[in-house]
Amino acid sequence: MTEYGHGGDIYSQEVWLDFSANINPLGMPEGVKEAIRRGVEQAAPYPDAACRRLRAALGEFYRVERDEIICGNGAADLIFQLALARRPGRALVTAPSFSEYEQALAVCGTQVRRCALREERGFAFDLEEWMGEAEAWKPDLAFFCNPNNPTGLAERRETVEEMARFCGERGIFLVVDECFGEFLDEPESCSILGELGHFPGVFVLKAFTKLYAMAGVRLGYGFCSDSSVLEAMEAVRQPWSVSTLAQEAGIAALKETEYVEETRHMIRRQRDFLKDGLRGLGFEVWDSQANYLFFRGREGWKEDLLRRKILIRSCANYPGLDGRYYRICVRTGEDNEKLLRELRNIAEKGRTV
Amino acid sequence: MTEYGHGGDIYSQEVWLDFSANINPLGMPEGVKEAIRRGVEQAAPYPDAACRRLRAALGEFYRVERDEIICGNGAADLIFQLALARRPGRALVTAPSFSEYEQALAVCGTQVRRCALREERGFAFDLEEWMGEAEAWKPDLAFFCNPNNPTGLAERRETVEEMARFCGERGIFLVVDECFGEFLDEPESCSILGELGHFPGVFVLKAFTKLYAMAGVRLGYGFCSDSSVLEAMEAVRQPWSVSTLAQEAGIAALKETEYVEETRHMIRRQRDFLKDGLRGLGFEVWDSQANYLFFRGREGWKEDLLRRKILIRSCANYPGLDGRYYRICVRTGEDNEKLLRELRNIAEKGRTV
Repeated sequence: MTEYGHGGDIYSQEVWLDFSANINPLGMPEGVKEAIRRGVEQAAPYPDAACRRLRAALGEFYRVERDEIICGNGAADLIFQLALARRPGRALVTAPSFSEYEQALAVCGTQVRRCALREERGFAFDLEEWMGEAEAWKPDLAFFCNPNNPTGLAERRETVEEMARFCGERGIFLVVDECFGEFLDEPESCSILGELGHFPGVFVLKAFTKLYAMAGVRLGYGFCSDSSVLEAMEAVRQPWSVSTLAQEAGIAALKETEYVEETRHMIRRQRDFLKDGLRGLGFEVWDSQANYLFFRGREGWKEDLLRRKILIRSCANYPGLDGRYYRICVRTGEDNEKLLRELRNIAEKGRTV
Repeated sequence: MTEYGHGGDIYSQEVWLDFSANINPLGMPEGVKEAIRRGVEQAAPYPDAACRRLRAALGEFYRVERDEIICGNGAADLIFQLALARRPGRALVTAPSFSEYEQALAVCGTQVRRCALREERGFAFDLEEWMGEAEAWKPDLAFFCNPNNPTGLAERRETVEEMARFCGERGIFLVVDECFGEFLDEPESCSILGELGHFPGVFVLKAFTKLYAMAGVRLGYGFCSDSSVLEAMEAVRQPWSVSTLAQEAGIAALKETEYVEETRHMIRRQRDFLKDGLRGLGFEVWDSQANYLFFRGREGWKEDLLRRKILIRSCANYPGLDGRYYRICVRTGEDNEKLLRELRNIAEKGRTV
């Protein structure tokens, strides 16, 4: 087994509270659970390779044409398909960001340049610098994570549109990863999805996984107004990548509008609570707008907490970061209080923050 | 959506009886259904990327070391990973055989040679001819489907061992697809799995999909005694390709030994019944040992039957075959009788067989 550097490893160690994976702490909605349980009765045959009903539901939900939608076995699956379908000679990513972009590009032997998000600028994205890097590197493809993982910082739609225009003029295929976009207070203000008709060279990636707490079911999706891009992705994968259970779960999830509202409300409140708590303890915490927080302390917090069966994400394996950086998921009030209490207990034993 | 040439498309047309996909007609065992329903409660977090419990169960079941086992999102998923991990310059396949081998190899730009299974020899595999083709073509990789799809003809273990030795001496990586092996009357007599320790350059592919009627759940697995091969496969895919639901389903399925015995018994009886029936009607039927039958008639049977809401697999898109060749799944007695009745009705209306 190759080394596992992501959050969410609750299988190789005893974990009571997992803050390391950015999953909705409200848990899977009952309607989604019920859809899967019902779906079992339809899961003997092969799944619909074209995901017809799910794509129709997504098309209606987002007011997008069905043939501009593709579904995958989690968003990560679609990242690999994008890399294989585009086979870019050169790619541009930001750093730190989600590591699967580089993993997928490595399969194609793509040369990758990292545009650094610098701590001295609060890890903020700098459009001018990014364009400069793109002008110099001349990539065929760029990945942009919005809001960014692990920092949680989001760029407004206008900025992403400017990137899309810039890329369109230079033949750079732009993948905008909005997998955590639905957790933002105002998702639409940061999403380029509504403008995709103007940008055939842009792919928007989204996931059911995180928002509906169904990471173990696997379901991601994406949009591109150039349907030949989606056809190329289908050509590099098996026909049956999305299970019947996942298709049923996705169709049910789109009906859970109240759950999503409640989630956004809770995340906003709890993110502030956690942020204040961490800052009060002396951690450097950045202003994430997503359902996770990125912060800096001394090294060793992950191990200290794991002894108390709490798992947080060390960001030591992100390019540009080291063992002093961490990411935690925003969970329910009770869980967040527990985390802060344990951090306080450890700090009070005389260990520096 | 790229064109769908496989069996099992019950979504784009009205189908009452699907004979086109080779799924166990006994349906998903209740124990597997229950495992999935229970698994829903564990499916909020990311799945175990290493499939630890499932691989342990498989290891025990087959008496193989865990680190020689890999799981995937269906066997088809593993075929793509094999191609990407090995990146063969040249490959050898038999024809007709399962088309996803060539689909996956196309992703790597592999040059493929097809060793023909000839009708004049009853589509039988000819080891001497295959070795001759391999000597001439010098492939880096060969796919061998045992029992073969769509013909259902199986080679004995001794033959596959000879292929493995031959390949080992020439540095040809051999993938033996035993996805339908468990449906044979005596699976072990045709499986090379027990000998893998002697052949680090052989990969054996298997699937839960067909035997346990869980194609909509997606779960395949494979074995290779060279663990670096499995690590290379993991490097070309996302970490979470096997859902939690599939992992739970697989663990439960391995306990269904009675169901498997009953399946084998029923398939053997019903295969003979269907074969006799088809022959009685005048079709040319080959001696499949698997859970499907391969036969020849005139063109148009698929369309004739589809008007009666029965779906069979036309083999027109298999290289070397045309619209006169068909494959049907062996189903329950009642279903098989229905199929034969409809075939007879159509034939009695004066249409040739």
